[in-house]
Amino acid sequence: MPRPIIATLDTAALTSNLAVVRRHAPNARVWSVVKANAYGHGLNAVWQQLQQTDGFALLDLNEAITLREEGWQGPILLLEGFFQPTDLAEIDRYRLTTTVHSTWQIDALARMIPLAPFDIYLKLNSGMNRLGFNEQQLHTAWQALSALKQVASLTLMTHFAYADIPEGIAEQMAVVYRVGEGLHGPRCLANSAATLWHPTTHWQWIRPGIILYGASPSGDWKHVADSGLRPVMTLHSELIAVQQVPAAGRIGYGGYYRSEETQRIGVVACGYADGYPRHAPTGTPIWVDGVCTRTLGTVSMDMLMVDLQPCPQARIGSPVEFWGNHIKIDDVATRAGTLGYELMSSLAPRVPINIL
Amino acid sequence: MPRPIIATLDTAALTSNLAVVRRHAPNARVWSVVKANAYGHGLNAVWQQLQQTDGFALLDLNEAITLREEGWQGPILLLEGFFQPTDLAEIDRYRLTTTVHSTWQIDALARMIPLAPFDIYLKLNSGMNRLGFNEQQLHTAWQALSALKQVASLTLMTHFAYADIPEGIAEQMAVVYRVGEGLHGPRCLANSAATLWHPTTHWQWIRPGIILYGASPSGDWKHVADSGLRPVMTLHSELIAVQQVPAAGRIGYGGYYRSEETQRIGVVACGYADGYPRHAPTGTPIWVDGVCTRTLGTVSMDMLMVDLQPCPQARIGSPVEFWGNHIKIDDVATRAGTLGYELMSSLAPRVPINIL
Repeated sequence: MPRPIIATLDTAALTSNLAVVRRHAPNARVWSVVKANAYGHGLNAVWQQLQQTDGFALLDLNEAITLREEGWQGPILLLEGFFQPTDLAEIDRYRLTTTVHSTWQIDALARMIPLAPFDIYLKLNSGMNRLGFNEQQLHTAWQALSALKQVASLTLMTHFAYADIPEGIAEQMAVVYRVGEGLHGPRCLANSAATLWHPTTHWQWIRPGIILYGASPSGDWKHVADSGLRPVMTLHSELIAVQQVPAAGRIGYGGYYRSEETQRIGVVACGYADGYPRHAPTGTPIWVDGVCTRTLGTVSMDMLMVDLQPCPQARIGSPVEFWGNHIKIDDVATRAGTLGYELMSSLAPRVPINIL
Repeated sequence: MPRPIIATLDTAALTSNLAVVRRHAPNARVWSVVKANAYGHGLNAVWQQLQQTDGFALLDLNEAITLREEGWQGPILLLEGFFQPTDLAEIDRYRLTTTVHSTWQIDALARMIPLAPFDIYLKLNSGMNRLGFNEQQLHTAWQALSALKQVASLTLMTHFAYADIPEGIAEQMAVVYRVGEGLHGPRCLANSAATLWHPTTHWQWIRPGIILYGASPSGDWKHVADSGLRPVMTLHSELIAVQQVPAAGRIGYGGYYRSEETQRIGVVACGYADGYPRHAPTGTPIWVDGVCTRTLGTVSMDMLMVDLQPCPQARIGSPVEFWGNHIKIDDVATRAGTLGYELMSSLAPRVPINIL
């Protein structure tokens, strides 16, 4: 037997979350984002369950080829485009849709003789200042690509930096409207937050990611609690030891937590090398033997400690849930100063995945 | 071609770091700690290079079996012991040394008929309040194990919680001395920090971990800069885009960084889904095209942005080092509010490892 830690995937929740997406954007086609090994859930299990999508978006060419070889025949979008001119041969061979965000990529396309012309997503930098052509450069890029016989279709794409916070999408949408004048073709703008909260961004294609996995794009579960989204991943383990700590006893590395009085604590087989965040402080919610309690002290590489005062019946072997249906991943992430995105995608390969 | 991110291992540094360990503890035997897939470096590459060790310590039974099947014939220590009574059959078959930290494990041993008796590490909880028998319980456990025909040898083991900080080892060593009176057998106490800084803890066996990989147990590289330790892992990638950001332009998610004036920035193919910490704030040191510069804005899942003002010659394709010889992993970890331990062990499976 390996250590008792395991991640269980409720794959029916994936299908259900995709249906939630479609209810929010009934007229848009859906790129289901499965980059980073489907946000840590495992590409294979996820794409099999999401075959009602219109396409899959990811960024590693190897992942795209895997998806094709496993049998997905629909569209696949490379979100960061290609990294080398030589990648184009594989993009051609596997019929992938690629993003173009830099001038050298247009030059590489122009020198290529593909089996069939490419579907291109032209990336506009509308204010995030990450990938893409800015407002001044975009028309030149669009015209250069339009003139290429290697290009079958052009879609205008951008990425929102604040769709989940009060800044919203107004400034970036203003750029999209200005730049988009006179550019004929589909648009692909909306990430998860814009899919849920900004219907004016939906256009022809949307790109939901985190909401397919049942967490909030804002990092706050309250914002999606009424949406019908369901968590896909449950991370759970067991108590492997119980300690009776004397008053003023220190717990874990650094001893930053001291018990006020005699305290019964549990040791759980999960640490930051499993993907649980080391930043999670004392007091992070955790579900032990059917009760919501809290972590104590610094998370170790392979273990963490929990307060057993609220669950006196708990003993070695009692089940522990880190996140899932009882504890929302967003709540753990918030306590750790991060987002559900990071926790999901950091699940360690040593944690076995059990697919329901 | 996959994305340009790659981790390079200088395996000669492993051998060299083991020699540093031996100089610090010339009379102790060494358990090289290779848990968590050798702290993210890859068990196979690491154990092959560390064959001059006296034994390997880890915690997953599957990893122990892998190590045996790959050819290591020396001692293997299971740091958390066994998780189920049925594990004992494999521990027996693969000749593993196991930790015992709970009473149920003694009972399980007593019911077992092994091919040969076991070498047991009896875990003392000397104040960390994680695994182990406390001061009051330990003698009973020792005597129970001593009486078993299933037990070939007993070693007293404990783990230090503050060996890297001013609290030090005094309180815990006082417990070890009190408990150890009259218990005949070897001791195994020292982790990396105690190996370097507390020679009174060395006794018969030491258990260095992080220092074998060339980072500081305290999280501060200055504390080990003169020790001769060398970083084993270099994480590197390339610039995949360059942006000219206008004055007051916002960079990345949330837009928490705003440029004061027109600023040239680079986009790097590495994000938190590769294992780079999302907590790394603007200003985290990063090596771009031969120059130390800084990160800008929030780290994305697959990308991060850097300031190119100090390296005007940098362009798409320029090399970037996140940590290694130029940027110490401890310095990145400190900025991100964590330790090198977490960064190493969080290296994502999608990052290919290149072994020098």
